[in-house]
Amino acid sequence: MKAANFQGKGKVVLGDFPNPKIQEQTDAIIRVVRTCVCGSDLWYYRGILDHETGRIGHELIGVIEEVGGDVKELKPGDFVIAPFKFSDGTCANCLAGFQSNCIHGASFSAGTDGGQGQFVRSPYADATLVKVPGSDFSEEMLASFTALSDVMCTGYHAAISAEIKEGDTIAVVGDGAVGLCAIISAKKLGAKRIIALSRNPARQEVAKEFGATDIVSERGQAAIDATMKLTDGVGVNAALECVGSDEAMETAVGITRAGGIVGAVGVPNYDNFKYQSAFWKNVGIRGGIAPARQYIPELLEDVLKGRINPGRVFDLTTDLEHISEAYAAMDERRAIKSLIKVSEL
Amino acid sequence: MKAANFQGKGKVVLGDFPNPKIQEQTDAIIRVVRTCVCGSDLWYYRGILDHETGRIGHELIGVIEEVGGDVKELKPGDFVIAPFKFSDGTCANCLAGFQSNCIHGASFSAGTDGGQGQFVRSPYADATLVKVPGSDFSEEMLASFTALSDVMCTGYHAAISAEIKEGDTIAVVGDGAVGLCAIISAKKLGAKRIIALSRNPARQEVAKEFGATDIVSERGQAAIDATMKLTDGVGVNAALECVGSDEAMETAVGITRAGGIVGAVGVPNYDNFKYQSAFWKNVGIRGGIAPARQYIPELLEDVLKGRINPGRVFDLTTDLEHISEAYAAMDERRAIKSLIKVSEL
Repeated sequence: MKAANFQGKGKVVLGDFPNPKIQEQTDAIIRVVRTCVCGSDLWYYRGILDHETGRIGHELIGVIEEVGGDVKELKPGDFVIAPFKFSDGTCANCLAGFQSNCIHGASFSAGTDGGQGQFVRSPYADATLVKVPGSDFSEEMLASFTALSDVMCTGYHAAISAEIKEGDTIAVVGDGAVGLCAIISAKKLGAKRIIALSRNPARQEVAKEFGATDIVSERGQAAIDATMKLTDGVGVNAALECVGSDEAMETAVGITRAGGIVGAVGVPNYDNFKYQSAFWKNVGIRGGIAPARQYIPELLEDVLKGRINPGRVFDLTTDLEHISEAYAAMDERRAIKSLIKVSEL
Repeated sequence: MKAANFQGKGKVVLGDFPNPKIQEQTDAIIRVVRTCVCGSDLWYYRGILDHETGRIGHELIGVIEEVGGDVKELKPGDFVIAPFKFSDGTCANCLAGFQSNCIHGASFSAGTDGGQGQFVRSPYADATLVKVPGSDFSEEMLASFTALSDVMCTGYHAAISAEIKEGDTIAVVGDGAVGLCAIISAKKLGAKRIIALSRNPARQEVAKEFGATDIVSERGQAAIDATMKLTDGVGVNAALECVGSDEAMETAVGITRAGGIVGAVGVPNYDNFKYQSAFWKNVGIRGGIAPARQYIPELLEDVLKGRINPGRVFDLTTDLEHISEAYAAMDERRAIKSLIKVSEL
């Protein structure tokens, strides 16, 4: 079968791999329908974080091809969304709704076949995969389902972690797909004023479509100054940090008012940022790797009812043969996020 | 008048200072009844943090001696508790209940006369000081009122920031006066199991009196291991960090379960601890300088009704003449916290 093959910095090509097989009786094999490239995949692509060569990716939707003998809830033909981490559903962290910290779980990228290929094995299939009711969906709907695999849930985790309330003034630091989904999430939770920090006109446009009321196009201290000015010198109730850089963390803490929370979901790629800058301001920091499995059912309902349209973050659609371009376009910021059409539903 | 005089590392003596005078019409002059030495005063005493020479201290209760023309709520003779920071009561942070981040406020130590002396000037007297109803109080009650000036509110801020709920399992890192008050606070909020990290038998005793159900006497990684064992490998719902050192922060994050919160109130005296260790565990960190002015009315009611007895943290009582001993006893860990009797109520 065909799948993306990570060969080191700047090099993701199409490769040939053996088809995955059931290894445990709780496994399922998924025929991938759509997958996509994550901002965190770019850390590897850019050589900033290490990744083994070979299969890569962790966001996918698809159709169950085969199940192990202990899989009870799913059967071949079922259409499912895979959260980017698999989880057993029974450990203390899973039971508390933090499936992304499952003691037996891992990312699809690190723990199994990656996501960017024709077939993927899912461990703990019953606990991990979320079945989508129905079978006749538009391209837009399929894109939104794919966004539920990671970015939409990650943006929502920022908003939930920051405890956004009805009427809040919030800011989103980062205009990538996660940041844009954080805007959807802030609006869903009732934020009245949503300040998007973005200097890219195309992304500003999507930010406004999703509910941003103000745009700050400055960066660094100038972004802090501009946001403070917009909030009468007080700062925002919550800042959603969706980048993971030193500058983004410092900006997020810098614009949050006393007693507020930074919802932090950017994969940490910073070294200088320290918690005590938040301490002195009485600003909390909460977040982490999003428990997508907790959020997918609720957000799937929102997608099915047409209340949210996170698939809008995909502005490049390609196929597996063009996986290199899917990465390059995001790396060069020509695309917000690349969707890869692997097979028909 | 007499007051503590900080003369540099290891040296706090009794000094002579001019009596404070009304400077603004919103000021009040307080005749100090009780004051005490704070764990944070020890950072200066030990030469770890800088402090100007001269007056020091920021925890006090006393009787109003004189008020400026714009003071409406208080009059000479009123018995008051001073939160350790004064605040204007009108800025956005004050209105949100974060008076410790008042844009015109400061610590009594940094912004006015310190607290350890016969008289102290309070700026913004109406907004800052909390009147205590009644005039006939036991020594124990006076000690508890003094604890409301800082440590009890600071311990409570840890518990509130960590969002402790009925039935939670929590841990308190630090067995100083703040840590002990955090135990009172966790119990008040309904924690079912309270694990106190303490290796000092006298403090363990107070911890148990206040509601600790388990004691962990190990430190560092051994403390993490012992606490994880007590919680079946899962960790606590919340850890209250009441020290402010690298080791305490790392321990607090290390023992908190996925989705839990570290309530951090130890004045930061760490340099290595970084937020990302919490990120990967989906552990939030919230806290900061306690808004004592927000909490005093509620906690005063608890003290007056006999529901809490935070004054129990004082295990040395002396007078202003023995201010050096008050510091030395805490520095040498012979005392948990030193109470200084300045005048009769």
